[in-house]
Amino acid sequence: MTIVDAKIHPALMGSLSPNVTVDEVINFSPGPTSLPAAVEKTIADSFQTPGLTSLALSHRSPEFLAILNHAAASVRSVMSIPDDYEVLFMHGGGHGQFAAVPLNLCRDPSDIATYVINGTWSLRGKDEAQKYCRAQVVDGSDPETGAYTSFPDLTEADIHPNSKYVYLCSNETVNGIELHRLPKLPDSRRHIPLVIDASSDFSTKPIDWVNSGVGVLFACASKNIGHPGLTLVVVRKDLIGTGKASPLCPGVFNYTTNRDAENLWNTPATFNIEVVGHVMDWIQREGGVDEIECRCIAKAKALYDVIDGSSGFYSTPVTNKSQRSRMNVPFNICGGDEDLTNQFLIRSWEKGMIGLRTLTPFGVGDHLRASLYNGVTLEQTHHLATFMRRFCEKYS
Amino acid sequence: MTIVDAKIHPALMGSLSPNVTVDEVINFSPGPTSLPAAVEKTIADSFQTPGLTSLALSHRSPEFLAILNHAAASVRSVMSIPDDYEVLFMHGGGHGQFAAVPLNLCRDPSDIATYVINGTWSLRGKDEAQKYCRAQVVDGSDPETGAYTSFPDLTEADIHPNSKYVYLCSNETVNGIELHRLPKLPDSRRHIPLVIDASSDFSTKPIDWVNSGVGVLFACASKNIGHPGLTLVVVRKDLIGTGKASPLCPGVFNYTTNRDAENLWNTPATFNIEVVGHVMDWIQREGGVDEIECRCIAKAKALYDVIDGSSGFYSTPVTNKSQRSRMNVPFNICGGDEDLTNQFLIRSWEKGMIGLRTLTPFGVGDHLRASLYNGVTLEQTHHLATFMRRFCEKYS
Repeated sequence: MTIVDAKIHPALMGSLSPNVTVDEVINFSPGPTSLPAAVEKTIADSFQTPGLTSLALSHRSPEFLAILNHAAASVRSVMSIPDDYEVLFMHGGGHGQFAAVPLNLCRDPSDIATYVINGTWSLRGKDEAQKYCRAQVVDGSDPETGAYTSFPDLTEADIHPNSKYVYLCSNETVNGIELHRLPKLPDSRRHIPLVIDASSDFSTKPIDWVNSGVGVLFACASKNIGHPGLTLVVVRKDLIGTGKASPLCPGVFNYTTNRDAENLWNTPATFNIEVVGHVMDWIQREGGVDEIECRCIAKAKALYDVIDGSSGFYSTPVTNKSQRSRMNVPFNICGGDEDLTNQFLIRSWEKGMIGLRTLTPFGVGDHLRASLYNGVTLEQTHHLATFMRRFCEKYS
Repeated sequence: MTIVDAKIHPALMGSLSPNVTVDEVINFSPGPTSLPAAVEKTIADSFQTPGLTSLALSHRSPEFLAILNHAAASVRSVMSIPDDYEVLFMHGGGHGQFAAVPLNLCRDPSDIATYVINGTWSLRGKDEAQKYCRAQVVDGSDPETGAYTSFPDLTEADIHPNSKYVYLCSNETVNGIELHRLPKLPDSRRHIPLVIDASSDFSTKPIDWVNSGVGVLFACASKNIGHPGLTLVVVRKDLIGTGKASPLCPGVFNYTTNRDAENLWNTPATFNIEVVGHVMDWIQREGGVDEIECRCIAKAKALYDVIDGSSGFYSTPVTNKSQRSRMNVPFNICGGDEDLTNQFLIRSWEKGMIGLRTLTPFGVGDHLRASLYNGVTLEQTHHLATFMRRFCEKYS
């Protein structure tokens, strides 16, 4: 490769093709990103195996129905989803669910829903929901800076008793805030179902479905459980049924029609569903979601320890350590020094560490971000931690 | 395999795993189905090549942007799409577009749209649209039988002058009716844009975009151009823009937001888009869409000739030969004789010919269907034609 001589260095343009052989590449992208190596091998092998791949299977064939049923059963098993919840595979990504949630749970646009805002994605979810319901906000922004640096406490006064649901994003990828366990609503509001955008942390920690009062949980596939083009939706059965959704809900987003058609209301994303099944199989083989959580804690600790031990050379915006994201570790170098940041990006890229800055339109400013999804190992994370420590020693 | 001894024969259950080695399998599924063999090889090779596959690429990386831009440019080139049309890659399949079309083109639910109904899919499109506009129907069903066996003539009286669009499905997969060229509206209605559901025939024949008055054309990917999880939308630029869509249009279905974000309003189905690019490259290499159309004509003729020459042993419901589908050839054996139909399915399955009957909920009755998408070659179609001829000789 000669592109390192280009006027603008490829590492600074978010290039994912570093100057190393592929075995050394470590993908810290915020998603889409690499799947666990074993899963990537399973997929590659499936294209070398005689027979039709799921790219070519009719969604109504017994062969695909076996894949679909396996994926749904594996998700249910890995995440201990109780029988009174449905597992749906839908189209439209997380953004599709931003509309689907109010369209399914608010039959009338005058219905109230409560949105807890602690970052980019909960804000975007609320903006979309306002088309379909009266979205009332619990604002988690810092009163002085306006930044999102922690998850707000939820009090009785925050939540209208007639609210159809309380919506929250359990991991804000851009802001680096994560709920390691779901919050409990105040006693007088425990009748209200939680709606969880778990797009970036689903399958990385256990969920106490019943005691947390989860009504709906959704996850786009492209962070921890697959690749884009598929959305997993887990919905409590009592929340769906004929006449419950808004008459304006597109059929493709309607939980009831999709449940009634057993995920075949329209052609589902067949191959994408197969991949989710492979990821769930991998989690089972590795020891289940408790083991995955241990790894996530260890991976995140490796980086936060370097940041906290750098005497301010590195800083991270989330001050409440108990809410720091294990999935996405945002950090600054010397308060966002441009030259040092560029040096960091170029040198790490040359060592095969990619995805530490993506050119998003979401104004993450000068933050870098290391995303530690299921595809990233503890050993790979230690590579980055070691690099960060040495970089700090050299330039601080 | 021993499943042939099962009480219900796998061939009758729509199994796609016949009793032959994989090189001999011929996939006549109505979709999802096999891609051209060369494209399947390209995909398989991509998983053996060093570097990240598009499963793992951030949608904002320069590497994926090159894939996205290539796919869009190739679609534009292969289908001669004029500059005043946008090419969008969206979520939600054809069913998503059933809602997206009225939500983008009818700002107010009192707006009128005209739906030409000539089969299962145009009917389903109309049913969904009625949530968002006043859908007026041009009914193409047979007045006596109620069956859809031809595409109706479009007269001035059929189309309200204020209709926001005239909607039609250019190939009805279940009913076997295809418009080999788009119709022209009556002179007094030429100002009204056509909306085309081309899910099952896009890329198999040229489209005269401007003279036909195409406003929107959409195609789910899983028939001729890719695999499920992606929808291609081509939309005339003057039909989109701020304030044109209904305020109730979900952002993920909004043509304007997706155009403004250059197909990155939310995470697109990255790998699925790469596959569409591979299919378009294949069409270019094979000689372009005119060559593909010649092959489609020859493939369909091979089967219809057997049907028409069978002295009634085989029959097909579409009597107007100029509207017979080249994509999906529906046929009966001896008026739907159950024993003969089962014999046909089992014997053809044993020879590796699969997908001739899928267990759909759409009431195709006793029809079999041979689907002849881009993944099926003329030689493979001749195998089926020969089998059909011999089966007729043996049992008629």
